[in-house]
Amino acid sequence: MGKKGILVVVSGFSGAGKGTIMKRLLEDYPERYALSISATTRAPRPGESHGKEYFFVSKEEFEEMIEKDALIEYARYVNNYYGTPKDYVFQQLEAGRDVILEIEIQGALKVKEAFQDTLLLFVSPPSAQELKDRLVNRGTEERAIIESRLNRAWQEAQGVENYDYFVINDDLEECVQEVHNIIRNEHARVTRNHTVIENIRAELKGFAKGD
Amino acid sequence: MGKKGILVVVSGFSGAGKGTIMKRLLEDYPERYALSISATTRAPRPGESHGKEYFFVSKEEFEEMIEKDALIEYARYVNNYYGTPKDYVFQQLEAGRDVILEIEIQGALKVKEAFQDTLLLFVSPPSAQELKDRLVNRGTEERAIIESRLNRAWQEAQGVENYDYFVINDDLEECVQEVHNIIRNEHARVTRNHTVIENIRAELKGFAKGD
Repeated sequence: MGKKGILVVVSGFSGAGKGTIMKRLLEDYPERYALSISATTRAPRPGESHGKEYFFVSKEEFEEMIEKDALIEYARYVNNYYGTPKDYVFQQLEAGRDVILEIEIQGALKVKEAFQDTLLLFVSPPSAQELKDRLVNRGTEERAIIESRLNRAWQEAQGVENYDYFVINDDLEECVQEVHNIIRNEHARVTRNHTVIENIRAELKGFAKGD
Repeated sequence: MGKKGILVVVSGFSGAGKGTIMKRLLEDYPERYALSISATTRAPRPGESHGKEYFFVSKEEFEEMIEKDALIEYARYVNNYYGTPKDYVFQQLEAGRDVILEIEIQGALKVKEAFQDTLLLFVSPPSAQELKDRLVNRGTEERAIIESRLNRAWQEAQGVENYDYFVINDDLEECVQEVHNIIRNEHARVTRNHTVIENIRAELKGFAKGD
């Protein structure tokens, strides 16, 4: 298409399956999508490697990135920083790839504020009951943890009105296709086609004058 | 889906192929779409029948519809009225069908003003040159008519910024699919899912309290 990519933020209730959806998008359409990789100051866990799960950096390096405005958004949890470096995202967007960021709702709204063109998708199970069932059926979590997750989900649901799309993950295949279609169609938005429209308009003006 | 349909206005340069696209949508997805039928005071042409191409009504009947606010939009050309009766459109929307209106840009903006939920699509050939070629290749029109069409197209192109999507009709099959996807995805817009979101939120709140 020769057009710039779109910055897409995907959020959703834990248990909504957003990780799986994003993995599938990258597998099915490797030339179209890039996944943003976060930087963090926390230590790598076994099996994690630099530039794959995260960019692992020191506290000093991270604070330098903050100072240089080199991050799209960042947050501090407990004693560690987590953030999205601009460089990689902008490179991919310039190359025409749509870049997917998986972040929670507060980060998503910060990104949208800084980059108004950002497309915000929220992934949800078909119902709260279904979300509860999925959390219970994982079988690994205690009741207290499940309740705290549901409580967190309820808090998260407060900001959904600021998103562009509310995607229901009922059938995974259908949901992957729907998310792909939404992102693809977003390229046809008038607000993303000012140059194309301007060009056609200028050409038409020439013709109308009998050029 | 059990959801209300969406009012979709399709406009586009003459020669952009919007008539063909809409015909195909109705053929391929007869349960999903309904085409709005306009009312007019002009006399039927040979082969046209009431309730198919148009609802043919008298001037008195039309002016009564205006008075009763029974039209979504209307306009007067030369000595005839043309307009979109509300009844049929609203019935179809209630039945969950997306209703497609083919009207030009001024009418489209009036509809959007009255019904903010309206989805506006503009169909264009890939370039102004392509539009000119299509008009020339029809071979039936004089140079002066072609120029007046191109001039009209240029005027129409002024209002495109108010549309939601700018769809390029390069390959017909792809374009039909794209328009179908755009309309289908529109159902997943957050602004069209307030009730669904409210319900999930209320249910989550109950769970979080340990219900």
